[in-house]
Amino acid sequence: MKKRVPKMQRQEILQRNLSTNPFITDEDLAEEFNCSIQTIRLDRLELGIPEVRERMKQVAEKNYTKVRSVINSEIVGELVELELGKKATSIMEVTSDMVSMKSKVCRGHHIFSQANMLAMALIDADVVLTGSARVRYRRPVYLKEKVIATAFIARNHGNKHLVKVVSKVGAEEVFTAKFIIVSR
Amino acid sequence: MKKRVPKMQRQEILQRNLSTNPFITDEDLAEEFNCSIQTIRLDRLELGIPEVRERMKQVAEKNYTKVRSVINSEIVGELVELELGKKATSIMEVTSDMVSMKSKVCRGHHIFSQANMLAMALIDADVVLTGSARVRYRRPVYLKEKVIATAFIARNHGNKHLVKVVSKVGAEEVFTAKFIIVSR
Repeated sequence: MKKRVPKMQRQEILQRNLSTNPFITDEDLAEEFNCSIQTIRLDRLELGIPEVRERMKQVAEKNYTKVRSVINSEIVGELVELELGKKATSIMEVTSDMVSMKSKVCRGHHIFSQANMLAMALIDADVVLTGSARVRYRRPVYLKEKVIATAFIARNHGNKHLVKVVSKVGAEEVFTAKFIIVSR
Repeated sequence: MKKRVPKMQRQEILQRNLSTNPFITDEDLAEEFNCSIQTIRLDRLELGIPEVRERMKQVAEKNYTKVRSVINSEIVGELVELELGKKATSIMEVTSDMVSMKSKVCRGHHIFSQANMLAMALIDADVVLTGSARVRYRRPVYLKEKVIATAFIARNHGNKHLVKVVSKVGAEEVFTAKFIIVSR
């Protein structure tokens, strides 16, 4: 069992961790510090740090204004990073309406949709279409898991763009894709 | 301009056409017979033939009971044909929530979803997962177009199944896909 960290020190590390990665959940932090989730909530309250969903939204809102090719509401998941024409990241939490009733595994097309819309949002053009895709599902994704997709442009050839996407749950790759996106 | 067909003859042809292809719309029929849509509606009423949506549902309901791998509500579009382990067909109408606000083109992931769920429904097993996919978008699909996807099993290799899907609007290919589906 891990040793408990004193409050002062914990709040310092917590603040540092959240400034580098604003998407760590209270659950993750509680586990890291071997304390209760309630303690983390009180820490955040004292430090004036909003909850993860709110932090995600704040970051996403800044990114949505940069997107040219698609409308915000069309993006699947929250757009947490965007360097137009270079790379982008989105986070999607698997909700109960996305999993198979039988196996409780997230239906593949939701993971595809997240990656595909991210690939499109990345393109610095007003109108974009998907030309083709090659995708691979590496392991099943389950209810409540958070899928973090990162996309980058691997090659531009005129109005055709090769976009690669890797989707992870934690450190584990769950899905990879290559899209040919055509801009107009 | 095409010549009008007398009523008796028209109703005969109409009945024959709809028994081979129950998914022809009143619009298509009106065009074929060079008459108004209202005339076709009256014809159907006299012949006791329900409207296309109802006909589609009737056929689909029979097929849903055959599916093992997925729940009805998970299928994207209406499942209008199913020979478990062999081939399947679904029809999806492009609605306004599926098109890009900017280009009015149907978002690629909807067309992917239809094909992917059809490929899964086709498999004669209780639990299925998508392993990989290669897809190609042949031409943009627009609002109100009806996408007819047909899937067939090209090869079985143990618990891995290669499923090919071709999606058409009318006679035109709009999308093709190859899925590797894994059954358990």
